[in-house]
Amino acid sequence: MPDDANPMQRFSRTAIEDFMQRCFVATGVPSDDAGTIAHFMAESDIMGKDSHGIFRLPGYLKRFQAGGFNKTPNIRVEEERTATALVDGDNGLGHLVIKYCADLAIKKAKQTGVSWVGVHHSNHAGAAGAYAMLPLAHDMIGLYVAVGSANHLPPWGGTKSLLSTNPIAVAVPGMEEDPILLDMATTVTSYGKVKVHAQRGIPMPEGWMIDGDGNPMTDASLSDSGYLLPIGGPKGYGLALIFGILAGTLNGAAFGKDVVDMNADQTSVTNTGQFIIALDIAAFMDVDEFKRQIDDVVRLMRSSPTLPGVESVRMPGEGSFAAIAERTANGIPLPVPLLDNLRNVAGELNVAPLD
Amino acid sequence: MPDDANPMQRFSRTAIEDFMQRCFVATGVPSDDAGTIAHFMAESDIMGKDSHGIFRLPGYLKRFQAGGFNKTPNIRVEEERTATALVDGDNGLGHLVIKYCADLAIKKAKQTGVSWVGVHHSNHAGAAGAYAMLPLAHDMIGLYVAVGSANHLPPWGGTKSLLSTNPIAVAVPGMEEDPILLDMATTVTSYGKVKVHAQRGIPMPEGWMIDGDGNPMTDASLSDSGYLLPIGGPKGYGLALIFGILAGTLNGAAFGKDVVDMNADQTSVTNTGQFIIALDIAAFMDVDEFKRQIDDVVRLMRSSPTLPGVESVRMPGEGSFAAIAERTANGIPLPVPLLDNLRNVAGELNVAPLD
Repeated sequence: MPDDANPMQRFSRTAIEDFMQRCFVATGVPSDDAGTIAHFMAESDIMGKDSHGIFRLPGYLKRFQAGGFNKTPNIRVEEERTATALVDGDNGLGHLVIKYCADLAIKKAKQTGVSWVGVHHSNHAGAAGAYAMLPLAHDMIGLYVAVGSANHLPPWGGTKSLLSTNPIAVAVPGMEEDPILLDMATTVTSYGKVKVHAQRGIPMPEGWMIDGDGNPMTDASLSDSGYLLPIGGPKGYGLALIFGILAGTLNGAAFGKDVVDMNADQTSVTNTGQFIIALDIAAFMDVDEFKRQIDDVVRLMRSSPTLPGVESVRMPGEGSFAAIAERTANGIPLPVPLLDNLRNVAGELNVAPLD
Repeated sequence: MPDDANPMQRFSRTAIEDFMQRCFVATGVPSDDAGTIAHFMAESDIMGKDSHGIFRLPGYLKRFQAGGFNKTPNIRVEEERTATALVDGDNGLGHLVIKYCADLAIKKAKQTGVSWVGVHHSNHAGAAGAYAMLPLAHDMIGLYVAVGSANHLPPWGGTKSLLSTNPIAVAVPGMEEDPILLDMATTVTSYGKVKVHAQRGIPMPEGWMIDGDGNPMTDASLSDSGYLLPIGGPKGYGLALIFGILAGTLNGAAFGKDVVDMNADQTSVTNTGQFIIALDIAAFMDVDEFKRQIDDVVRLMRSSPTLPGVESVRMPGEGSFAAIAERTANGIPLPVPLLDNLRNVAGELNVAPLD
């Protein structure tokens, strides 16, 4: 993760993507699949979602080597209706599995107007926004929901972490403006951000976590004994619960106490659940007219006067599109400790290093 | 609205529903349609959503009389695909329009597994949860989203109210347990609750609203110069925005600056947009097995130990089902000032009064 105290070295997206593909291939993942996984991981990096990109490579490789992920999954449709499918991810890495689901959802929505593809026996898939964006190229709106890969959220008022951050991502295309890309956890912050604060020894803002007595927790080093807070109290709890049921329970995937913490357990099948919806704009409205209206919405929101100290109103996804522009031009910055780690990985796998 | 200082009088659901139907018929609404509207309004009352039930009757009647609602709408499908439809509500009252959309969504989902029905030229439809519940009788999950009928929410960091509370409701059936029914605004509180605080002269909690400088606003009498806060800051703003686009823009319905405040304007067509999704459980899993698993989820959440001062973990919708049980047994409590108002309404329309 970026840190002001650590110098950064920048790499092109291609260099990062190729390196990741080499590593996966050397671990036994077929070349095409390795390329798909590397693509979506690099997509996270270019979008500025650093905690879901190459940062995850060592952990993913370790779990592949330990047998926790299936290197050669037979991803397939298990149940199907005209507008729906239940996919078996066969314990493949999520990036691969969700790409399969998204392609299927897009194909179905072309015929039916909308489709809903759920999956079980999937795994962690990285940045949700990358998948919600896939239908855009087909003039569709994308919506993606996942069961998070570790439970740090109790039901509202409770003290047992039975829920995860269960994120939602929705992407809506504009004409001249960037798409609107909402990509959010149902908790105030992600556990990843908490861990970064712990690593750096800096206090968390009040409102991120509470302790077992319900008091605000600001010392991130104590986070194992604390609880994430949902957005809007009982409302965020309700969203996390419903998203978990729709992405998990309905798909026969893990939810609640059955969720496996991928980082704490290298070998157990996580049976992760996700779903993706593709919604064909043309089923409701002329596509160009819709995109022009989205441009109007974006400009209208940005035209709002602002509170003191606020420079301008931002659109959901604005940070990601700014990162894409900056990082495409200047490269993706990686911190030195991560680079050291990646050099070791390359050595162990006997592949050409990143640098 | 209930108030400890005001005595309540209780009425059976049937009495309330019949009275509302009489009033609508006397205003020129066909008897069947009047019955449907009265049914969904009484559904709000029995579920404890007092601000969406008979409390709204005088306002709705006034708007019917002023020509703001169409008494005899020709609700019809305007665009259609196998799994989608765009419905024209022809400016009918929302209760009638959304019932039409829900029936269509259920019919479609039986064939396709999932359906998405959007609507424009609809109107205020009352309690969102009542519509999300409709698919349950068909062993489907229901999801309903509406563009709120007045803008009190600025984009995050902004000071122009361009968004409404844009609510979402999702209903998931259990076997022995009550359904899980999430029914929430994307704002911390509804503007209705703010108005109740203003009426009673009691302060609002911090976190509900801010003033134009971004400071907490607790004096509800100043609410016209303040702004509702979204849940989770930019996240709730993102949800309100996306829900508004999906329920409004995509359907050719009003969104942003075009939203008409139904209570401030008796005659303009509101062009309200909503959408409903029906998701057939059997397309993913054995229905009984799913319902049993939902029972397990409910019991698991309730089994969580609690924070000091919290008696038990509650499920989304628990309050509504408790209200249904209590009010079915004891009647629906109505405050005396509302009853006075309803007596006047009955007199003006020359229909038999409620009491």
